[in-house]
Amino acid sequence: MYRKDIKIMDCTVRDGGLMNNWQFSDEFVKGVYQSCVEAGVDYMEIGYKSSDKIFSRKENGPWKFCDEKDIRRIVGDNKTNTKLSVMVDIGRIELKDIPKKQDSIIDMTRVACYVHQIDKAIQHAEHCLDKGYEVTINLMSVSKVTERDLDEALNDIAKSRVPIFYLVDSFGSLYHEQIQDFVRRYKNALPGKTIGIHAHNNMQLAFSNTVTAIIEGCDMLDATILGMGRGAGNCPLEILISFLKNPKYRLLPILDAIQNHLIPMQKQIDWGYHIPYLITGALNEHPKAAIDWMNSDKKNDFVAFLKHMYDQNALLE
Amino acid sequence: MYRKDIKIMDCTVRDGGLMNNWQFSDEFVKGVYQSCVEAGVDYMEIGYKSSDKIFSRKENGPWKFCDEKDIRRIVGDNKTNTKLSVMVDIGRIELKDIPKKQDSIIDMTRVACYVHQIDKAIQHAEHCLDKGYEVTINLMSVSKVTERDLDEALNDIAKSRVPIFYLVDSFGSLYHEQIQDFVRRYKNALPGKTIGIHAHNNMQLAFSNTVTAIIEGCDMLDATILGMGRGAGNCPLEILISFLKNPKYRLLPILDAIQNHLIPMQKQIDWGYHIPYLITGALNEHPKAAIDWMNSDKKNDFVAFLKHMYDQNALLE
Repeated sequence: MYRKDIKIMDCTVRDGGLMNNWQFSDEFVKGVYQSCVEAGVDYMEIGYKSSDKIFSRKENGPWKFCDEKDIRRIVGDNKTNTKLSVMVDIGRIELKDIPKKQDSIIDMTRVACYVHQIDKAIQHAEHCLDKGYEVTINLMSVSKVTERDLDEALNDIAKSRVPIFYLVDSFGSLYHEQIQDFVRRYKNALPGKTIGIHAHNNMQLAFSNTVTAIIEGCDMLDATILGMGRGAGNCPLEILISFLKNPKYRLLPILDAIQNHLIPMQKQIDWGYHIPYLITGALNEHPKAAIDWMNSDKKNDFVAFLKHMYDQNALLE
Repeated sequence: MYRKDIKIMDCTVRDGGLMNNWQFSDEFVKGVYQSCVEAGVDYMEIGYKSSDKIFSRKENGPWKFCDEKDIRRIVGDNKTNTKLSVMVDIGRIELKDIPKKQDSIIDMTRVACYVHQIDKAIQHAEHCLDKGYEVTINLMSVSKVTERDLDEALNDIAKSRVPIFYLVDSFGSLYHEQIQDFVRRYKNALPGKTIGIHAHNNMQLAFSNTVTAIIEGCDMLDATILGMGRGAGNCPLEILISFLKNPKYRLLPILDAIQNHLIPMQKQIDWGYHIPYLITGALNEHPKAAIDWMNSDKKNDFVAFLKHMYDQNALLE
């Protein structure tokens, strides 16, 4: 299945940083960058672009802010085929604080939003387009969005100038028939636009759902090395590259990053398949409760966590 | 998707024992058994039935042999709704050493075979049928079988009295379109028979492939608690039960077994998603080379393992 249009976006530092407030050593970030470049990965998302009026620089590492000088310390002038991306959240950065593309090492800005923020997201994205960046909109938590709201959002995106729109399974709760339905709906509503996929691994479906999305015509594929990311993590980049067998990608540099950077990192951060994440995924809930549980001294009491979640859900009814 | 005909087969002890020569404590095996019973699991495969003329009792624990007295020590008279299964490999037991069902606590024998052994497997299976057992045939390593050989095997099975035939992805190398093709072919060739699925997790597809198999009409589903099994392990029982939402199954007893028995076992045995298993899976090779690598002092040198496997494959060409 050779598809020239496929692009891979590595999100290891951006999504993984949700687990350690982006407190990565430069060596780690450089290791990820080098392996992406050598592996032929099309984009690397190096962090969030956010304002230090809203987030503390003491609590958060540099990849929460993505200052030009920090990025350049890692990538120099980035004379490579791997483009650099940052994610922006609605309301966490002022548009005036985003430099023009000609003054930035960044190639792409991805605007993450919830469904009620879609108008603002389009405004943000078109602003970044006008400043010279490639842009995407990533609609989060789609497993909780009503059909009516989704139709309206897709309608707005269709009329916008935004060229790439993402299917995001924030809770890791979708299985392949649902992914199929969503991608078909996105493709039908957005002729001429590129569809992306960002999956989470709560039910060990992140890679499988990415494959389903590819088959349905998604061309932008998010993945992270060893699946590193919030909670259960993401589609593992090494499985995706092994599977695609696309001549533009190489597996070896990714394995190098795994053994030299990701395996040591696993001793500090407990991402990946763990029962509390399975439970929030299966219940179609945000992983926050599971992350809190994993950070508590009851971490391995899964029976108590399931009961806790059942009680919470009963209260919500 | 409520399907009354679905049956779950827990293989934790049988497949997991491939990693420690079935050297489990009685407490562990009882824990798995109790949780299967309480969770409503339909079958528990407690081990292999093999001959101690072929395998050493010193090197292998009791679940390599499944003597009646050993099984009864765990399950008593098994007055529960969970049936007991054993697996037999062609040539590793003499038919005369299998007791009649009326003298055994075992309910089902599953005959595992390679494609060239299909005639012997049918002979074994029908022998066990005649002794009063439920039986299945599990055709292993199907990802290496030629179309012609598979057609002939299916033709033989169709003419046999064997009621259940398994799709077995021994190397964990199949993805969902391939599973779909195989199940359709099995169903077409074997009208009136039940199809089973036994998946491995090398590419994190064991659960996803099991779901695909269900959608295509498979009714016998193999799974293991926390995915414990050879190499990358199997379809995790806890994800399968979370997903099915079938009223006959309960998740809580499985979580209990995970926290009390499987998590401690993970400190002794390194099953699950690891890069060497990904590599053999992606190359459609037996996991043996990866298991040997995982037991060596080069365990975490994935770059060297990939080069080693490429060299081996080049030599084979």
